[in-house]
Amino acid sequence: MEPSAVPLHTVGTSPQRLDAREKVTGRATFISDLRVPGMVYTKLWRSPLPHARLRAIDTTTAARAPGVLAVLTAADLADCDRYFGPAYKDQPILAIDRVRYAGEPVVAVVAYSEREAEAAVALLEVDLDELPAVTTLDEALAPEAPLLHETLRPAGHFRDLANMRPIAGTNICHHFHHARGAIEQGFAEAEVIFEDVFTFPMVHHYSMEPHVAIAQVGNDQITVWASTQHPFPVRKELAEMFDLPLARVQVIVPYLGGAYGNKSYTKIEPLVVALARKVGRPVRLALTVEESFKTVRRAAARVRLKTGVQRDGTIVARQCTAHYQIGAYADVGPRVAQKAGYTAGGPYRIPHLHIDTYAVYSNTVNSVAFRGYGVPQLAWAYESQMDIMAERLGLDPLDMRLKNLLRRGEMFAPGDLPIDADLPGDLRRAADAIGWGQPLPRGRGRGLACVIKAPLAPSVSSALVRMHADGSVTLLAGTVEMGQGARTVLSQIVAEELALPLMWVRISQPESGTSPYDQATSSSRSTTLVGLALQAAARDLQQQLLELAAEQLQTHLTHLTLRDGGVEGPGGRLSYADIIADHFGLPGGELIGRGGYRGERGAPLGGVAPFWEVSLAAAEVEVDEGTGQVQLHRYISIADVGKAIHPQQCEAQEEGGVMMGIGHTFFEEMIYQDGQLLNPGLFDYRIPTMTDLPGDLRSILVENADGPGPHGSKGIGESGLMPTAPAIANAIARAIGVRLTALPLTPERVWQAMRAAQADQTA
Amino acid sequence: MEPSAVPLHTVGTSPQRLDAREKVTGRATFISDLRVPGMVYTKLWRSPLPHARLRAIDTTTAARAPGVLAVLTAADLADCDRYFGPAYKDQPILAIDRVRYAGEPVVAVVAYSEREAEAAVALLEVDLDELPAVTTLDEALAPEAPLLHETLRPAGHFRDLANMRPIAGTNICHHFHHARGAIEQGFAEAEVIFEDVFTFPMVHHYSMEPHVAIAQVGNDQITVWASTQHPFPVRKELAEMFDLPLARVQVIVPYLGGAYGNKSYTKIEPLVVALARKVGRPVRLALTVEESFKTVRRAAARVRLKTGVQRDGTIVARQCTAHYQIGAYADVGPRVAQKAGYTAGGPYRIPHLHIDTYAVYSNTVNSVAFRGYGVPQLAWAYESQMDIMAERLGLDPLDMRLKNLLRRGEMFAPGDLPIDADLPGDLRRAADAIGWGQPLPRGRGRGLACVIKAPLAPSVSSALVRMHADGSVTLLAGTVEMGQGARTVLSQIVAEELALPLMWVRISQPESGTSPYDQATSSSRSTTLVGLALQAAARDLQQQLLELAAEQLQTHLTHLTLRDGGVEGPGGRLSYADIIADHFGLPGGELIGRGGYRGERGAPLGGVAPFWEVSLAAAEVEVDEGTGQVQLHRYISIADVGKAIHPQQCEAQEEGGVMMGIGHTFFEEMIYQDGQLLNPGLFDYRIPTMTDLPGDLRSILVENADGPGPHGSKGIGESGLMPTAPAIANAIARAIGVRLTALPLTPERVWQAMRAAQADQTA
Repeated sequence: MEPSAVPLHTVGTSPQRLDAREKVTGRATFISDLRVPGMVYTKLWRSPLPHARLRAIDTTTAARAPGVLAVLTAADLADCDRYFGPAYKDQPILAIDRVRYAGEPVVAVVAYSEREAEAAVALLEVDLDELPAVTTLDEALAPEAPLLHETLRPAGHFRDLANMRPIAGTNICHHFHHARGAIEQGFAEAEVIFEDVFTFPMVHHYSMEPHVAIAQVGNDQITVWASTQHPFPVRKELAEMFDLPLARVQVIVPYLGGAYGNKSYTKIEPLVVALARKVGRPVRLALTVEESFKTVRRAAARVRLKTGVQRDGTIVARQCTAHYQIGAYADVGPRVAQKAGYTAGGPYRIPHLHIDTYAVYSNTVNSVAFRGYGVPQLAWAYESQMDIMAERLGLDPLDMRLKNLLRRGEMFAPGDLPIDADLPGDLRRAADAIGWGQPLPRGRGRGLACVIKAPLAPSVSSALVRMHADGSVTLLAGTVEMGQGARTVLSQIVAEELALPLMWVRISQPESGTSPYDQATSSSRSTTLVGLALQAAARDLQQQLLELAAEQLQTHLTHLTLRDGGVEGPGGRLSYADIIADHFGLPGGELIGRGGYRGERGAPLGGVAPFWEVSLAAAEVEVDEGTGQVQLHRYISIADVGKAIHPQQCEAQEEGGVMMGIGHTFFEEMIYQDGQLLNPGLFDYRIPTMTDLPGDLRSILVENADGPGPHGSKGIGESGLMPTAPAIANAIARAIGVRLTALPLTPERVWQAMRAAQADQTA
Repeated sequence: MEPSAVPLHTVGTSPQRLDAREKVTGRATFISDLRVPGMVYTKLWRSPLPHARLRAIDTTTAARAPGVLAVLTAADLADCDRYFGPAYKDQPILAIDRVRYAGEPVVAVVAYSEREAEAAVALLEVDLDELPAVTTLDEALAPEAPLLHETLRPAGHFRDLANMRPIAGTNICHHFHHARGAIEQGFAEAEVIFEDVFTFPMVHHYSMEPHVAIAQVGNDQITVWASTQHPFPVRKELAEMFDLPLARVQVIVPYLGGAYGNKSYTKIEPLVVALARKVGRPVRLALTVEESFKTVRRAAARVRLKTGVQRDGTIVARQCTAHYQIGAYADVGPRVAQKAGYTAGGPYRIPHLHIDTYAVYSNTVNSVAFRGYGVPQLAWAYESQMDIMAERLGLDPLDMRLKNLLRRGEMFAPGDLPIDADLPGDLRRAADAIGWGQPLPRGRGRGLACVIKAPLAPSVSSALVRMHADGSVTLLAGTVEMGQGARTVLSQIVAEELALPLMWVRISQPESGTSPYDQATSSSRSTTLVGLALQAAARDLQQQLLELAAEQLQTHLTHLTLRDGGVEGPGGRLSYADIIADHFGLPGGELIGRGGYRGERGAPLGGVAPFWEVSLAAAEVEVDEGTGQVQLHRYISIADVGKAIHPQQCEAQEEGGVMMGIGHTFFEEMIYQDGQLLNPGLFDYRIPTMTDLPGDLRSILVENADGPGPHGSKGIGESGLMPTAPAIANAIARAIGVRLTALPLTPERVWQAMRAAQADQTA
């Protein structure tokens, strides 16, 4: 039975989210709600300086403060590997000899209460010897720049592709190069060449829940309740650091209060485990919002684009040189430079392409995974430049894009998945929806943008589906619910496969001890790839049911179909409960289906993309020429989902992405001065509110069933925010003829750009 | 590869228990240690009368007491099925219209703290109309006895075999009949006929941890942290009562602080769920020791045995009529009458056998499952009578037993498993170890006893073994760790199968949401039957490893063997980590093995015994003829384990059983007067202490590899206590010529029996 050939019952409908009721009634359990018996608390002393040597730490007074159990520095934790990091193991759990950014944890106080820990932190005396710091790309890349990491850690600590390494004697954490064609020849053939530079600021994820972790260590095992999107990679890193078999490390993940990449891989977990191991009690660390700002951010970027085109708009050659300003430690910085860099040509046909991207260390807070994984920074550049080029060539930006957009089946890069979406069709839908080409009053303009992102590849997911004696099922999968609605969608996929109502399906909490392996809840992959693993597990179970039913009904299984919680054939109907009861001869027993997804390996980055995440948008703005204030009136986001398993969630996730994109487009920027982050909190760091949303905000679902996932689905979720900034900037440019190349598009910047443009015209 | 054919590495050794360190350091988590966010507490108002109508309950004052959230009676809980019970659904969660024993829960107060709940309980006013009560077997069986259950509940509420039903118009909860041969003919053929009556008192399990449960209800699901040996049957009962699919009910079981049957099936869980559902918060109920005494006990019994023998000691015929005095509600009472009754012939060849056992309701606390499941009561009778007969016939009790003991392969009952143990050999080992036949000083005597018990059958267990990327494994099985060491033994079985060190194996906590189905942690079944399920799962995994390795090493899998965490063959060696890494091409991924055990159905009780649990003992006592004080000097317990997976645990479990047997032999008895339990606590209810143990207490492991479990293992654990009382009584009889037929063998009883015997001699 090929379920997509029969009418769908659950898939494609929008039932109430499984976690809706408990979340709106405040009963859902987040880690912050957990209390582990005997649990104690830690607070951290963080470096006030961006770069310094640690001369001495006097813990005497703090250690004697009321309620204090232990005051620990890196020196006290030397009996484990104190370095961690997903790509390079270059980040110490507490500063060792040196601090590299203002906010870096140096000393941990463990006490019976958070208040006591905090009070004792104030009693610490830390003697620092300040070093020159680099807090901008220019400073970090200067020839004589102070270096953050003079000596490279041993080779074993670089865990990714063999060529992923810092460049010795520089602050370059990784240089990624990718090319095809012959770039010089390409520029020689081009009729017009454009060169532009765009910048994207540091921004913060601002998930509602800052990082929290509780660790319990003992009896040769570690248990961590972690706010992580990566329970299995966190398990692996902890097992390595603390020298235990993987089976001895449990990572349990209750609901996350948002993540957007900030809870990717290990963050505070290694420290909390090291402390719990030391004090012999469960230890809890819950960051404040300010501490969260000092823990994670998106890489800032400067992108230089040189693009050669013909006068008819055909792109011939592109050279992209992008610098991602990462923080003091690598985290996924090198991977972002690589993975995003790989798509710097955008979703376009470019015969000659030459890409160099760099991840550059600086004395600032670490940049980590963030929705879009480096692509929004590049898209901001290439989709702004697309309009610059169209305008200068006198072409319609829609037409120019359509001319260059990759068609379905065209190669993106040799050895990788051919294009699996109808990009021109998608773009036309965006244009149609915004009323492209229709007249607008003065001060208004419309803009378009198209983006492509390569997902994490290859990746692996396993899944189990357990059918209980009454026919209801429990799914075991490692996907983390972080607000995206994964639990509901994955349950729908299995309910569909097994012809069960959603109420009869339950998905268990991700826990490395009991959930089958899943590589990551990231990269818009869960519906598609964990969905495939679960679908395979459900089909394995289906097969078992059909075989048993065929025996029990004395027929061949090809005559049988699954319907309404039972198996039907010419000889009659058996409910699943009947089948199981007959098989076991008892009121109990269960059938277990297992399934997996394993990504294909391939060039050039190691894995073939399972699908391309495409992202298209159209915006309409109005600019107040007196103040520079931009009002976003309308915004159309195209969600090319292949098949919407839960349409309402697809739309909502896309809209959430757009809202986040509106944030970095208009408001958000982490401001550093003298190495100090000036706005680590919501008073000074402005995120969008509901009143910042356009009156007409729509996400249009494109369902061409062209994804590899269940029922033709493919991933969205990051898509919403990738084209937002250029679509809006392009709309502004078409409204008032002014081009901005730096985000955010504050009224001040817009006003100054208008003044500059007027001055140019006057001059 | 047949692992039992190769040298064993882990199985058969006695590594440190996996839970040893956390338990001795007090860090192990029991339910009592858990705090669920938002949790509130309940205390119960219990009936002071053994039998009464509920006239009125005034909750007004209690409801207004400080901290009180709700005061609930059965009437408030009428929106669910308020009756539960594993065999008959005859027990209300709170008394409905009527109370049937002193201590029965009537009203529940839910408050913010236990203290507040308790204070409010004292403010309840309950108007009871006393009814005549029956608190002994004679009262309950009297022709005009007041009935506990005048009307039978609907048929759907009797969940066991079709013939398991109360007898209308009586207090007989169930009558079990089993026979073979022709009993009258048998007695006619016999040369001598013996008739004796033996009694066994009510005793309490006294596990260190009384019953505790926490329930959380909401979002269409129930989560219960329960101190239960039966997570899956508890799930089933809750799903039925509260009308949810099984997948929506989670039963989580941390360590139990002892059980011995008292935590079989549902006890306080349905009430706690009903309360949590009502108040919309997690509710915790933790019984006190006194409340535990008013919740569970072992059935008292009166056993009438009529046995016909030849003068050479050959048993010809036996009629057994046993009455089990159960409490106010059935619980497993009917099953105990049936299952134990089935073995009332003992491990002997008896051509003509006629058994009637009765479970009889009375106005006392419920009798529930208790180590031995009704067999110790019968064994007390038939093994005492064996010595009575031997003595009167002038035969050696050892010889008489050997003459009648069933041989390996002999039929126990038609359609059931033939005898799978060397009973004569086992008995000889016991006799040899105690020095049977060697001279003894005056006042000393030796006694023997042999018992057989039928395990739960048929039963079902499923298991999963997950191998992680480094080759370490997590076992998922539903077995509850209640001190018996199951986690260690099951881990050893898998470690052996996969050639891994024990440290690389972890077993997860039983939780119905994530552990595969397991019918029960009871009936000495886990090592053998869950062991088989896990072994099958490990072999499934083995096969996957061998297939992958064969491909990777380019050889045929028959050339490969598993050794030291890897696969070796002529072409080289691959660690499991290598095999997995090569298969997935990534640092993560896992292989999942699945396996199951499914018991064979068959006559006469529905399932064929997977093995016979046999139990043999020899005791040596000294009786102080002045005081009647009996000193147990030596005790030999034969643990016929087939194969000891963990010899030290086998010995310890057997010794623990003996100690429990010493309790009911010498000290324990729940005393009722006017329907009131007089000794519900350790001041008045004496259990054995270390000083009551014999100086020479030995358990001898018999390892004939004749069990069906991994490596030939079979179940022990109940065995230790089944022959204790008759072995000791027989030793007393041989020491001082006095036969006791009622337990416990207090100095007073022994002294009075001696006086009576002297009076007889004098007369």
